[in-house]
Amino acid sequence: MYPSDQLSATFAALADPTRRAILGRLSRGQMPVKQLAEPFEMSLPAISKHLKVLQRAGLIERGREAQWRPCRLRAAPLKKVANWVEHYRRFWEERLDRIDEYLRELQGKEKKHGRAK
Amino acid sequence: MYPSDQLSATFAALADPTRRAILGRLSRGQMPVKQLAEPFEMSLPAISKHLKVLQRAGLIERGREAQWRPCRLRAAPLKKVANWVEHYRRFWEERLDRIDEYLRELQGKEKKHGRAK
Repeated sequence: MYPSDQLSATFAALADPTRRAILGRLSRGQMPVKQLAEPFEMSLPAISKHLKVLQRAGLIERGREAQWRPCRLRAAPLKKVANWVEHYRRFWEERLDRIDEYLRELQGKEKKHGRAK
Repeated sequence: MYPSDQLSATFAALADPTRRAILGRLSRGQMPVKQLAEPFEMSLPAISKHLKVLQRAGLIERGREAQWRPCRLRAAPLKKVANWVEHYRRFWEERLDRIDEYLRELQGKEKKHGRAK
């Protein structure tokens, strides 16, 4: 469950809608766990488990202030995800190009058809 | 292990170095499973398991040619990963900006120091 390579650990941590929602919430600013947990219909221990997975993957960090240990987003692993997925961009863009080409062909045919009438 | 939402299924499928290497190999073109499996020190059944995870996540598809069922990359789920991670770009870019600012400040101080000597 806890992959040893960094990128696998990041992907595993992101493979859960609650954990992604936690990151989304932290993208608006750091906050203490209690406040972070508010919108989730989940016990505080359940949230803490998710936070541990995110922390182990380096996606969040906890402040050192003794009283108020806010959670903060750490974006460095997300940058690695972005770099990894970037290599595949040409595949979905090529596909869009092909759809575009197909639609243009269809339009061409329709025009021809229109003139023939 | 097999998350129900599409994005979680994609992230879970990507959380393994062998599965990412399989996608990397398929990014050079479709190929039959045997050829695909060549560089991996793994049994064919082990590779097949990985392929099933990738297929379930919609990251690959198998051709319908009866004799030769090549594996092909499907980039649509990767596009969703790229879109998701894009929302966080400002966080790692801001961080780089801050490092940049800090380095410029340091350089400024050094220059001052240089002139004072």
